[in-house]
Amino acid sequence: MDERSLVELLRRDSGSRGLVLGIGDDCAVYRPKPGEDLVFTSDLLIEDVHFTSELFRPEAIGHKALAVSLSDIAAMGAVPKFALLSLGVPASCGEKWMRSFFRGFHKLARRYDTTLAGGDLSRSDKIVCDVTVCGAVRSGKALRRDGARPGDSIFVSGRLGRAWQRHQKPEPRIKLARKIAGRATSCMDLSDGLSLDLHRLCLASGVAAELDRVPARRGATPELALHGGEDYELLFTLPPRKAAPAGTIRIGRMVEGEPGAVKLLGAPLAPGGYDHFRRSGSRH
Amino acid sequence: MDERSLVELLRRDSGSRGLVLGIGDDCAVYRPKPGEDLVFTSDLLIEDVHFTSELFRPEAIGHKALAVSLSDIAAMGAVPKFALLSLGVPASCGEKWMRSFFRGFHKLARRYDTTLAGGDLSRSDKIVCDVTVCGAVRSGKALRRDGARPGDSIFVSGRLGRAWQRHQKPEPRIKLARKIAGRATSCMDLSDGLSLDLHRLCLASGVAAELDRVPARRGATPELALHGGEDYELLFTLPPRKAAPAGTIRIGRMVEGEPGAVKLLGAPLAPGGYDHFRRSGSRH
Repeated sequence: MDERSLVELLRRDSGSRGLVLGIGDDCAVYRPKPGEDLVFTSDLLIEDVHFTSELFRPEAIGHKALAVSLSDIAAMGAVPKFALLSLGVPASCGEKWMRSFFRGFHKLARRYDTTLAGGDLSRSDKIVCDVTVCGAVRSGKALRRDGARPGDSIFVSGRLGRAWQRHQKPEPRIKLARKIAGRATSCMDLSDGLSLDLHRLCLASGVAAELDRVPARRGATPELALHGGEDYELLFTLPPRKAAPAGTIRIGRMVEGEPGAVKLLGAPLAPGGYDHFRRSGSRH
Repeated sequence: MDERSLVELLRRDSGSRGLVLGIGDDCAVYRPKPGEDLVFTSDLLIEDVHFTSELFRPEAIGHKALAVSLSDIAAMGAVPKFALLSLGVPASCGEKWMRSFFRGFHKLARRYDTTLAGGDLSRSDKIVCDVTVCGAVRSGKALRRDGARPGDSIFVSGRLGRAWQRHQKPEPRIKLARKIAGRATSCMDLSDGLSLDLHRLCLASGVAAELDRVPARRGATPELALHGGEDYELLFTLPPRKAAPAGTIRIGRMVEGEPGAVKLLGAPLAPGGYDHFRRSGSRH
Protein backbone atom coordinates (compact mmCIF):
# COMPACT_ATOMS: atom_id res chain seq x y z
CA MET A 1 0.00 0.00 0.00
CA ASP A 2 1.22 3.50 -0.77
CA GLU A 3 0.22 6.70 0.97
CA ARG A 4 -2.52 7.47 -1.52
CA SER A 5 -4.38 4.16 -1.14
CA LEU A 6 -4.03 4.53 2.62
CA VAL A 7 -5.57 7.96 2.52
CA GLU A 8 -8.48 6.40 0.63
CA LEU A 9 -8.80 3.81 3.41
CA LEU A 10 -8.84 6.60 5.97
CA ARG A 11 -11.42 8.55 4.06
CA ARG A 12 -13.84 5.66 3.69
CA ASP A 13 -16.87 5.71 5.98
CA SER A 14 -15.58 8.85 7.56
CA GLY A 15 -18.61 11.04 6.80
CA SER A 16 -18.34 14.79 7.03
CA ARG A 17 -20.44 15.90 10.00
CA GLY A 18 -20.01 19.61 10.58
CA LEU A 19 -16.81 19.67 8.54
CA VAL A 20 -16.32 22.20 5.76
CA LEU A 21 -13.22 20.29 4.60
CA GLY A 22 -12.02 16.81 5.59
CA ILE A 23 -9.09 14.56 4.71
CA GLY A 24 -6.84 15.57 1.82
CA ASP A 25 -5.78 19.18 2.46
CA ASP A 26 -3.18 20.59 4.86
CA CYS A 27 -5.85 20.93 7.58
CA ALA A 28 -9.43 19.91 8.21
CA VAL A 29 -11.84 22.86 8.52
CA TYR A 30 -14.67 22.94 11.06
CA ARG A 31 -17.31 25.67 11.25
CA PRO A 32 -18.45 26.05 14.88
CA LYS A 33 -22.15 26.47 15.62
CA PRO A 34 -23.30 29.47 17.65
CA GLY A 35 -23.60 28.69 21.35
CA GLU A 36 -21.26 25.72 21.42
CA ASP A 37 -17.98 25.29 23.29
CA LEU A 38 -15.50 22.85 21.80
CA VAL A 39 -13.57 20.35 23.92
CA PHE A 40 -10.32 18.65 22.91
CA THR A 41 -8.34 15.64 24.06
CA SER A 42 -5.41 13.56 22.77
CA ASP A 43 -4.48 10.04 23.84
CA LEU A 44 -1.36 8.17 22.91
CA LEU A 45 -1.31 4.34 22.63
CA ILE A 46 2.06 2.63 22.20
CA GLU A 47 2.66 -1.05 21.56
CA ASP A 48 4.23 -2.87 24.52
CA VAL A 49 3.47 0.13 26.76
CA HIS A 50 -0.33 0.35 26.58
CA PHE A 51 -1.09 -2.92 24.81
CA THR A 52 0.60 -5.97 23.34
CA SER A 53 -0.03 -7.33 19.87
CA GLU A 54 -0.39 -10.80 21.38
CA LEU A 55 -3.47 -9.83 23.41
CA PHE A 56 -4.89 -7.16 21.14
CA ARG A 57 -6.12 -7.86 17.64
CA PRO A 58 -5.71 -4.91 15.22
CA GLU A 59 -9.47 -4.27 15.28
CA ALA A 60 -9.34 -3.97 19.09
CA ILE A 61 -6.40 -1.55 18.84
CA GLY A 62 -8.33 0.63 16.38
CA HIS A 63 -11.33 0.53 18.73
CA LYS A 64 -9.34 1.30 21.85
CA ALA A 65 -7.32 4.11 20.28
CA LEU A 66 -10.56 5.99 19.64
CA ALA A 67 -12.44 4.78 22.74
CA VAL A 68 -10.01 6.26 25.27
CA SER A 69 -10.34 9.70 23.68
CA LEU A 70 -14.14 9.42 23.36
CA SER A 71 -14.21 8.58 27.06
CA ASP A 72 -12.55 11.95 27.79
CA ILE A 73 -15.15 13.68 25.61
CA ALA A 74 -17.91 11.94 27.61
CA ALA A 75 -16.25 13.09 30.84
CA MET A 76 -16.86 16.70 29.76
CA GLY A 77 -20.57 16.03 29.08
CA ALA A 78 -19.86 16.64 25.39
CA VAL A 79 -20.73 14.83 22.17
CA PRO A 80 -17.91 13.95 19.76
CA LYS A 81 -17.69 15.76 16.43
CA PHE A 82 -14.52 14.63 14.69
CA ALA A 83 -11.18 12.90 15.25
CA LEU A 84 -7.62 13.20 13.97
CA LEU A 85 -5.57 10.00 13.90
CA SER A 86 -1.78 9.83 13.82
CA LEU A 87 -0.66 6.29 13.19
CA GLY A 88 2.82 4.78 13.04
CA VAL A 89 3.07 1.13 12.00
CA PRO A 90 5.89 -1.34 11.37
CA ALA A 91 6.32 -2.68 7.82
CA SER A 92 5.14 -6.05 9.17
CA CYS A 93 1.61 -4.65 9.49
CA GLY A 94 0.36 -5.13 5.95
CA GLU A 95 -2.86 -4.27 4.19
CA LYS A 96 -4.84 -6.87 6.15
CA TRP A 97 -3.69 -5.43 9.46
CA MET A 98 -4.52 -1.89 8.33
CA ARG A 99 -8.01 -2.85 7.15
CA SER A 100 -8.71 -4.58 10.43
CA PHE A 101 -7.41 -1.62 12.46
CA PHE A 102 -9.61 0.81 10.52
CA ARG A 103 -12.61 -1.53 10.81
CA GLY A 104 -12.37 -1.25 14.60
CA PHE A 105 -11.81 2.50 14.46
CA HIS A 106 -14.59 3.31 11.97
CA LYS A 107 -17.15 1.01 13.61
CA LEU A 108 -16.86 2.89 16.89
CA ALA A 109 -16.63 6.25 15.11
CA ARG A 110 -19.90 5.59 13.27
CA ARG A 111 -21.65 4.57 16.48
CA TYR A 112 -20.96 7.99 17.95
CA ASP A 113 -21.13 10.11 14.77
CA THR A 114 -17.44 10.93 14.87
CA THR A 115 -15.91 11.97 11.55
CA LEU A 116 -12.31 11.04 10.83
CA ALA A 117 -11.12 14.46 9.71
CA GLY A 118 -7.38 13.99 9.23
CA GLY A 119 -4.14 12.90 10.77
CA ASP A 120 -0.77 11.52 9.82
CA LEU A 121 0.70 8.19 8.76
CA SER A 122 4.24 6.97 9.25
CA ARG A 123 6.49 3.97 9.52
CA SER A 124 7.53 3.07 13.06
CA ASP A 125 9.28 0.19 14.86
CA LYS A 126 6.34 -0.24 17.23
CA ILE A 127 2.68 0.49 16.64
CA VAL A 128 1.98 4.04 17.78
CA CYS A 129 -1.36 5.79 17.59
CA ASP A 130 -2.40 9.15 18.87
CA VAL A 131 -6.06 10.12 18.57
CA THR A 132 -7.29 13.67 19.03
CA VAL A 133 -11.05 14.12 19.36
CA CYS A 134 -13.03 17.35 19.25
CA GLY A 135 -16.41 17.37 20.97
CA ALA A 136 -19.10 20.00 21.41
CA VAL A 137 -21.10 21.03 24.46
CA ARG A 138 -23.54 23.86 25.14
CA SER A 139 -21.53 26.98 25.95
CA GLY A 140 -20.53 27.08 29.62
CA LYS A 141 -21.97 23.61 30.32
CA ALA A 142 -18.81 21.48 30.08
CA LEU A 143 -18.44 19.16 33.10
CA ARG A 144 -15.22 19.88 34.94
CA ARG A 145 -13.30 18.28 37.77
CA ASP A 146 -13.42 21.31 40.00
CA GLY A 147 -17.14 21.71 40.67
CA ALA A 148 -17.84 19.09 43.38
CA ARG A 149 -19.14 20.54 46.67
CA PRO A 150 -19.42 19.06 50.18
CA GLY A 151 -22.70 17.17 50.41
CA ASP A 152 -22.72 16.11 46.75
CA SER A 153 -23.35 12.42 46.08
CA ILE A 154 -20.64 10.49 44.23
CA PHE A 155 -21.61 8.14 41.39
CA VAL A 156 -19.96 5.78 38.95
CA SER A 157 -21.53 4.82 35.63
CA GLY A 158 -20.98 1.06 36.14
CA ARG A 159 -19.15 -1.66 38.02
CA LEU A 160 -15.37 -1.41 38.19
CA GLY A 161 -12.36 -3.70 37.75
CA ARG A 162 -12.05 -4.09 33.99
CA ALA A 163 -8.25 -4.18 34.18
CA TRP A 164 -8.02 -7.98 33.99
CA GLN A 165 -10.07 -7.94 30.76
CA ARG A 166 -8.52 -4.91 29.24
CA HIS A 167 -8.01 -6.50 25.84
CA GLN A 168 -11.82 -6.33 25.55
CA LYS A 169 -13.38 -3.29 23.96
CA PRO A 170 -14.27 -0.47 26.35
CA GLU A 171 -17.47 1.44 25.54
CA PRO A 172 -17.24 5.20 26.02
CA ARG A 173 -20.15 6.60 28.07
CA ILE A 174 -21.25 9.17 25.51
CA LYS A 175 -24.98 8.54 26.02
CA LEU A 176 -24.79 8.92 29.78
CA ALA A 177 -22.72 12.08 29.37
CA ARG A 178 -25.60 13.74 27.53
CA LYS A 179 -27.92 12.91 30.43
CA ILE A 180 -25.73 14.40 33.15
CA ALA A 181 -24.45 17.44 31.22
CA GLY A 182 -25.74 20.54 32.97
CA ARG A 183 -26.80 18.50 36.04
CA ALA A 184 -23.62 16.98 37.45
CA THR A 185 -21.42 19.29 39.52
CA SER A 186 -18.22 17.50 38.45
CA CYS A 187 -17.17 14.60 36.26
CA MET A 188 -14.11 12.70 34.98
CA ASP A 189 -13.50 9.35 33.38
CA LEU A 190 -11.91 6.47 35.27
CA SER A 191 -8.74 5.52 33.45
CA ASP A 192 -6.14 5.18 36.21
CA GLY A 193 -8.18 3.53 38.96
CA LEU A 194 -10.93 4.84 41.24
CA SER A 195 -8.66 5.55 44.21
CA LEU A 196 -6.26 7.76 42.22
CA ASP A 197 -8.89 9.38 39.99
CA LEU A 198 -11.23 10.22 42.88
CA HIS A 199 -8.25 11.67 44.74
CA ARG A 200 -7.56 13.90 41.69
CA LEU A 201 -11.20 14.99 41.40
CA CYS A 202 -11.28 15.85 45.12
CA LEU A 203 -8.02 17.82 44.80
CA ALA A 204 -9.38 19.80 41.85
CA SER A 205 -12.62 20.57 43.72
CA GLY A 206 -10.95 21.23 47.08
CA VAL A 207 -13.05 18.63 48.90
CA ALA A 208 -12.68 15.23 50.63
CA ALA A 209 -14.67 12.06 49.90
CA GLU A 210 -16.26 9.27 51.90
CA LEU A 211 -16.94 6.03 50.04
CA ASP A 212 -19.61 3.57 51.24
CA ARG A 213 -19.04 0.94 48.58
CA VAL A 214 -16.95 -0.04 45.56
CA PRO A 215 -19.05 -1.98 43.04
CA ALA A 216 -16.86 -4.66 41.43
CA ARG A 217 -17.47 -6.34 38.08
CA ARG A 218 -18.01 -10.06 38.06
CA GLY A 219 -14.61 -11.75 38.36
CA ALA A 220 -12.81 -8.61 39.58
CA THR A 221 -11.22 -8.47 43.03
CA PRO A 222 -11.98 -5.46 45.27
CA GLU A 223 -8.33 -4.49 44.78
CA LEU A 224 -8.78 -4.29 41.02
CA ALA A 225 -12.06 -2.40 41.37
CA LEU A 226 -10.35 0.19 43.58
CA HIS A 227 -6.97 0.57 41.90
CA GLY A 228 -7.05 -1.36 38.62
CA GLY A 229 -7.72 1.37 36.07
CA GLU A 230 -8.82 0.99 32.45
CA ASP A 231 -12.48 1.14 33.47
CA TYR A 232 -13.52 4.04 31.25
CA GLU A 233 -16.61 4.49 33.39
CA LEU A 234 -17.60 8.00 34.43
CA LEU A 235 -17.06 9.24 37.98
CA PHE A 236 -19.41 12.16 38.71
CA THR A 237 -21.12 14.09 41.46
CA LEU A 238 -24.70 15.32 41.81
CA PRO A 239 -26.13 17.77 44.32
CA PRO A 240 -27.78 16.03 47.32
CA ARG A 241 -31.13 14.35 46.59
CA LYS A 242 -30.84 14.92 42.83
CA ALA A 243 -31.99 11.78 40.96
CA ALA A 244 -29.28 9.89 39.08
CA PRO A 245 -29.77 8.28 35.65
CA ALA A 246 -30.73 4.58 35.63
CA GLY A 247 -27.80 2.17 35.76
CA THR A 248 -25.48 4.51 37.63
CA ILE A 249 -24.34 3.56 41.13
CA ARG A 250 -24.04 5.82 44.15
CA ILE A 251 -20.76 5.08 45.96
CA GLY A 252 -20.46 7.85 48.57
CA ARG A 253 -20.47 11.57 49.15
CA MET A 254 -18.22 14.60 49.17
CA VAL A 255 -17.41 16.16 52.53
CA GLU A 256 -15.43 19.08 53.88
CA GLY A 257 -11.90 18.10 54.81
CA GLU A 258 -8.35 17.98 53.55
CA PRO A 259 -8.58 18.39 49.77
CA GLY A 260 -7.96 15.05 48.08
CA ALA A 261 -8.43 12.90 51.19
CA VAL A 262 -10.56 9.81 50.54
CA LYS A 263 -12.02 7.41 53.12
CA LEU A 264 -13.50 4.00 52.41
CA LEU A 265 -15.95 2.80 55.09
CA GLY A 266 -14.30 5.18 57.54
CA ALA A 267 -10.67 4.19 56.87
CA PRO A 268 -8.22 6.42 54.94
CA LEU A 269 -7.69 5.19 51.36
CA ALA A 270 -4.33 5.92 49.75
CA PRO A 271 -4.38 6.66 46.02
CA GLY A 272 -3.08 3.38 44.63
CA GLY A 273 -3.64 3.91 40.93
CA TYR A 274 -1.29 4.55 38.14
CA ASP A 275 1.34 7.15 37.41
CA HIS A 276 2.12 6.56 33.74
CA PHE A 277 5.35 8.31 33.87
CA ARG A 278 7.06 7.13 37.01
CA ARG A 279 6.68 3.47 36.14
CA SER A 280 6.86 2.22 32.58
CA GLY A 281 3.63 0.34 32.65
CA SER A 282 0.96 -1.15 30.54
CA ARG A 283 -2.12 0.79 31.51
CA HIS A 284 -3.53 3.77 29.81
CA MET B 1 10.07 13.23 37.49
CA ASP B 2 6.53 12.01 38.09
CA GLU B 3 3.47 12.80 36.04
CA ARG B 4 2.43 15.70 38.21
CA SER B 5 5.71 17.61 37.98
CA LEU B 6 5.66 16.97 34.24
CA VAL B 7 2.20 18.43 33.95
CA GLU B 8 3.55 21.51 35.72
CA LEU B 9 6.35 21.68 33.14
CA LEU B 10 3.75 21.46 30.38
CA ARG B 11 1.61 24.13 31.93
CA ARG B 12 4.41 26.64 32.33
CA ASP B 13 4.51 29.47 29.82
CA SER B 14 1.54 28.00 28.07
CA GLY B 15 -0.76 31.02 28.44
CA SER B 16 -4.49 30.65 27.94
CA ARG B 17 -5.39 32.46 24.73
CA GLY B 18 -9.04 31.88 23.90
CA LEU B 19 -9.21 28.85 26.17
CA VAL B 20 -11.93 28.50 28.78
CA LEU B 21 -10.08 25.56 30.33
CA GLY B 22 -6.50 24.39 29.72
CA ILE B 23 -4.27 21.60 30.99
CA GLY B 24 -5.46 19.56 33.96
CA ASP B 25 -8.98 18.36 33.14
CA ASP B 26 -10.14 15.54 30.85
CA CYS B 27 -10.31 17.97 27.93
CA ALA B 28 -9.32 21.52 27.07
CA VAL B 29 -12.28 23.81 26.35
CA TYR B 30 -12.24 26.44 23.59
CA ARG B 31 -14.99 28.97 22.98
CA PRO B 32 -15.10 29.82 19.27
CA LYS B 33 -15.54 33.44 18.20
CA PRO B 34 -18.39 34.35 15.86
CA GLY B 35 -17.33 34.38 12.22
CA GLU B 36 -14.31 32.12 12.56
CA ASP B 37 -13.67 28.74 11.00
CA LEU B 38 -11.30 26.43 12.86
CA VAL B 39 -8.59 24.42 11.10
CA PHE B 40 -6.91 21.31 12.50
CA THR B 41 -3.79 19.33 11.74
CA SER B 42 -1.76 16.56 13.42
CA ASP B 43 1.85 15.65 12.70
CA LEU B 44 3.73 12.68 14.02
CA LEU B 45 7.51 12.74 14.58
CA ILE B 46 9.26 9.48 15.41
CA GLU B 47 12.90 9.04 16.39
CA ASP B 48 14.96 7.29 13.69
CA VAL B 49 12.16 7.80 11.19
CA HIS B 50 11.83 11.58 11.06
CA PHE B 51 14.93 12.55 13.01
CA THR B 52 17.91 11.07 14.83
CA SER B 53 18.97 12.01 18.32
CA GLU B 54 22.55 12.36 17.06
CA LEU B 55 21.69 15.23 14.73
CA PHE B 56 18.80 16.75 16.68
CA ARG B 57 19.19 18.26 20.11
CA PRO B 58 16.07 17.96 22.31
CA GLU B 59 15.35 21.68 21.90
CA ALA B 60 15.35 21.26 18.11
CA ILE B 61 12.99 18.27 18.41
CA GLY B 62 10.57 20.32 20.52
CA HIS B 63 10.80 23.14 17.98
CA LYS B 64 10.33 20.90 14.96
CA ALA B 65 7.43 18.93 16.46
CA LEU B 66 5.42 22.15 16.70
CA ALA B 67 6.85 23.82 13.57
CA VAL B 68 5.63 21.15 11.13
CA SER B 69 2.06 21.52 12.43
CA LEU B 70 2.23 25.32 12.46
CA SER B 71 3.37 25.13 8.84
CA ASP B 72 0.10 23.33 7.99
CA ILE B 73 -1.85 26.05 9.81
CA ALA B 74 -0.02 28.69 7.75
CA ALA B 75 -0.86 26.75 4.59
CA MET B 76 -4.56 27.34 5.33
CA GLY B 77 -4.03 31.10 5.76
CA ALA B 78 -4.91 30.67 9.44
CA VAL B 79 -3.40 31.84 12.71
CA PRO B 80 -2.64 29.24 15.38
CA LYS B 81 -4.72 29.22 18.58
CA PHE B 82 -3.65 26.23 20.63
CA ALA B 83 -1.82 22.91 20.48
CA LEU B 84 -2.14 19.45 22.02
CA LEU B 85 1.09 17.51 22.49
CA SER B 86 1.34 13.74 22.88
CA LEU B 87 4.85 12.78 23.88
CA GLY B 88 6.40 9.36 24.41
CA VAL B 89 9.98 9.30 25.74
CA PRO B 90 12.46 6.60 26.78
CA ALA B 91 13.52 6.48 30.43
CA SER B 92 16.96 7.64 29.26
CA CYS B 93 15.51 11.09 28.55
CA GLY B 94 15.68 12.62 32.02
CA GLU B 95 14.62 15.94 33.42
CA LYS B 96 17.33 17.85 31.54
CA TRP B 97 16.16 16.40 28.24
CA MET B 98 12.53 17.24 29.02
CA ARG B 99 13.32 20.81 30.00
CA SER B 100 15.29 21.31 26.81
CA PHE B 101 12.52 19.78 24.67
CA PHE B 102 9.89 22.06 26.23
CA ARG B 103 12.19 25.08 25.89
CA GLY B 104 12.22 24.53 22.12
CA PHE B 105 8.48 23.89 22.03
CA HIS B 106 7.42 26.83 24.21
CA LYS B 107 9.79 29.31 22.55
CA LEU B 108 8.18 28.72 19.17
CA ALA B 109 4.69 28.53 20.71
CA ARG B 110 5.13 31.96 22.32
CA ARG B 111 6.38 33.48 19.07
CA TYR B 112 3.08 32.57 17.42
CA ASP B 113 0.72 32.94 20.40
CA THR B 114 -0.02 29.22 20.52
CA THR B 115 -1.29 27.93 23.85
CA LEU B 116 -0.33 24.42 24.92
CA ALA B 117 -3.81 23.23 25.87
CA GLY B 118 -3.30 19.56 26.69
CA GLY B 119 -2.02 16.24 25.49
CA ASP B 120 -0.64 13.00 26.81
CA LEU B 121 2.63 11.70 28.24
CA SER B 122 3.96 8.17 28.12
CA ARG B 123 7.02 6.02 28.27
CA SER B 124 8.22 4.72 24.91
CA ASP B 125 11.28 2.92 23.46
CA LYS B 126 11.82 5.68 20.92
CA ILE B 127 10.97 9.35 21.16
CA VAL B 128 7.49 9.86 19.69
CA CYS B 129 5.66 13.15 19.47
CA ASP B 130 2.39 13.99 17.87
CA VAL B 131 1.33 17.62 17.81
CA THR B 132 -2.20 18.72 16.97
CA VAL B 133 -2.70 22.42 16.31
CA CYS B 134 -5.97 24.33 16.02
CA GLY B 135 -5.93 27.56 14.05
CA ALA B 136 -8.57 30.12 13.18
CA VAL B 137 -9.40 31.86 9.92
CA ARG B 138 -12.21 34.16 8.83
CA SER B 139 -15.21 32.01 7.95
CA GLY B 140 -15.01 30.73 4.39
CA LYS B 141 -11.52 32.20 3.83
CA ALA B 142 -9.34 29.13 4.47
CA LEU B 143 -6.79 28.59 1.68
CA ARG B 144 -7.28 25.21 0.06
CA ARG B 145 -5.41 23.14 -2.48
CA ASP B 146 -8.27 23.00 -4.94
CA GLY B 147 -8.69 26.64 -5.94
CA ALA B 148 -5.89 27.19 -8.46
CA ARG B 149 -7.09 28.20 -11.96
CA PRO B 150 -5.34 28.24 -15.36
CA GLY B 151 -3.50 31.54 -15.71
CA ASP B 152 -2.75 31.88 -11.98
CA SER B 153 0.86 32.65 -11.09
CA ILE B 154 2.69 30.15 -8.87
CA PHE B 155 4.79 31.40 -5.95
CA VAL B 156 6.98 30.01 -3.19
CA SER B 157 7.66 31.87 0.03
CA GLY B 158 11.43 31.37 -0.13
CA ARG B 159 14.33 29.48 -1.65
CA LEU B 160 14.19 25.70 -1.56
CA GLY B 161 16.49 22.80 -0.69
CA ARG B 162 16.60 22.82 3.10
CA ALA B 163 16.80 19.02 3.21
CA TRP B 164 20.59 18.90 3.73
CA GLN B 165 20.24 21.21 6.75
CA ARG B 166 17.12 19.69 8.16
CA HIS B 167 18.46 19.50 11.70
CA GLN B 168 18.18 23.30 11.68
CA LYS B 169 14.99 24.89 12.91
CA PRO B 170 12.34 25.51 10.25
CA GLU B 171 10.31 28.71 10.65
CA PRO B 172 6.59 28.32 9.89
CA ARG B 173 5.30 31.02 7.52
CA ILE B 174 2.50 32.25 9.77
CA LYS B 175 3.09 35.95 9.03
CA LEU B 176 3.03 35.45 5.28
CA ALA B 177 -0.11 33.34 5.61
CA ARG B 178 -1.98 36.30 7.07
CA LYS B 179 -0.97 38.42 4.07
CA ILE B 180 -2.19 35.98 1.44
CA ALA B 181 -5.35 34.76 3.23
CA GLY B 182 -8.33 35.83 1.12
CA ARG B 183 -6.06 36.71 -1.84
CA ALA B 184 -4.36 33.46 -2.87
CA THR B 185 -6.47 31.06 -4.95
CA SER B 186 -4.70 28.00 -3.48
CA CYS B 187 -1.97 27.20 -0.98
CA MET B 188 -0.11 24.31 0.65
CA ASP B 189 3.12 23.91 2.57
CA LEU B 190 6.18 22.27 1.03
CA SER B 191 7.05 19.27 3.17
CA ASP B 192 7.66 16.49 0.66
CA GLY B 193 9.48 18.34 -2.11
CA LEU B 194 8.30 20.88 -4.71
CA SER B 195 7.88 18.35 -7.54
CA LEU B 196 5.55 16.07 -5.53
CA ASP B 197 3.72 18.81 -3.64
CA LEU B 198 3.06 20.90 -6.77
CA HIS B 199 1.82 17.74 -8.49
CA ARG B 200 -0.62 17.24 -5.58
CA LEU B 201 -1.81 20.85 -5.66
CA CYS B 202 -2.37 20.61 -9.43
CA LEU B 203 -4.30 17.34 -9.02
CA ALA B 204 -6.54 18.87 -6.33
CA SER B 205 -7.22 21.93 -8.51
CA GLY B 206 -7.58 19.99 -11.76
CA VAL B 207 -4.89 21.99 -13.54
CA ALA B 208 -1.35 21.59 -14.97
CA ALA B 209 1.70 23.72 -14.16
CA GLU B 210 4.62 25.23 -16.06
CA LEU B 211 7.68 26.15 -14.03
CA ASP B 212 10.18 28.78 -15.22
CA ARG B 213 12.61 28.50 -12.34
CA VAL B 214 13.37 26.67 -9.11
CA PRO B 215 15.06 29.01 -6.63
CA ALA B 216 17.65 27.01 -4.65
CA ARG B 217 19.05 27.94 -1.24
CA ARG B 218 22.73 28.58 -0.98
CA GLY B 219 24.52 25.24 -0.89
CA ALA B 220 21.53 23.27 -2.20
CA THR B 221 21.69 21.39 -5.50
CA PRO B 222 18.87 21.89 -8.04
CA GLU B 223 17.93 18.26 -7.32
CA LEU B 224 17.42 19.01 -3.61
CA ALA B 225 15.50 22.18 -4.36
CA LEU B 226 13.15 20.23 -6.64
CA HIS B 227 12.69 17.01 -4.70
CA GLY B 228 14.34 17.40 -1.31
CA GLY B 229 11.42 18.17 0.95
CA GLU B 230 11.48 19.55 4.49
CA ASP B 231 11.34 23.12 3.19
CA TYR B 232 8.25 24.25 5.09
CA GLU B 233 7.90 27.14 2.68
CA LEU B 234 4.47 27.96 1.29
CA LEU B 235 3.51 27.11 -2.28
CA PHE B 236 0.62 29.32 -3.42
CA THR B 237 -1.13 30.75 -6.45
CA LEU B 238 -2.39 34.26 -7.16
CA PRO B 239 -4.67 35.42 -9.97
CA PRO B 240 -2.72 36.87 -12.95
CA ARG B 241 -1.20 40.31 -12.35
CA LYS B 242 -2.04 40.32 -8.66
CA ALA B 243 0.91 41.68 -6.64
CA ALA B 244 2.70 39.19 -4.38
CA PRO B 245 4.03 40.00 -0.90
CA ALA B 246 7.68 41.03 -0.68
CA GLY B 247 10.15 38.18 -0.37
CA THR B 248 8.02 35.65 -2.25
CA ILE B 249 9.27 34.26 -5.55
CA ARG B 250 7.26 33.67 -8.72
CA ILE B 251 8.22 30.29 -10.18
CA GLY B 252 5.68 29.71 -12.98
CA ARG B 253 2.02 29.58 -13.85
CA MET B 254 -0.95 27.25 -13.93
CA VAL B 255 -2.22 26.13 -17.33
CA GLU B 256 -4.99 23.98 -18.72
CA GLY B 257 -3.87 20.41 -19.31
CA GLU B 258 -3.75 16.98 -17.75
CA PRO B 259 -4.49 17.51 -14.03
CA GLY B 260 -1.27 17.11 -12.05
CA ALA B 261 1.11 17.39 -15.02
CA VAL B 262 4.09 19.64 -14.30
CA LYS B 263 6.66 20.95 -16.80
CA LEU B 264 9.97 22.58 -15.96
CA LEU B 265 11.33 24.85 -18.73
CA GLY B 266 9.18 22.95 -21.21
CA ALA B 267 10.20 19.41 -20.17
CA PRO B 268 7.88 17.06 -18.23
CA LEU B 269 8.84 16.84 -14.54
CA ALA B 270 8.05 13.59 -12.71
CA PRO B 271 7.00 13.93 -9.06
CA GLY B 272 10.19 12.81 -7.34
CA GLY B 273 9.35 13.65 -3.74
CA TYR B 274 8.53 11.55 -0.83
CA ASP B 275 5.92 8.91 -0.09
CA HIS B 276 6.22 8.43 3.68
CA PHE B 277 4.55 5.18 3.65
CA ARG B 278 6.04 3.28 0.76
CA ARG B 279 9.62 3.86 1.89
CA SER B 280 10.57 4.00 5.52
CA GLY B 281 12.43 7.23 5.33
CA SER B 282 13.66 10.09 7.35
CA ARG B 283 11.72 13.00 5.97
CA HIS B 284 8.55 14.46 7.31
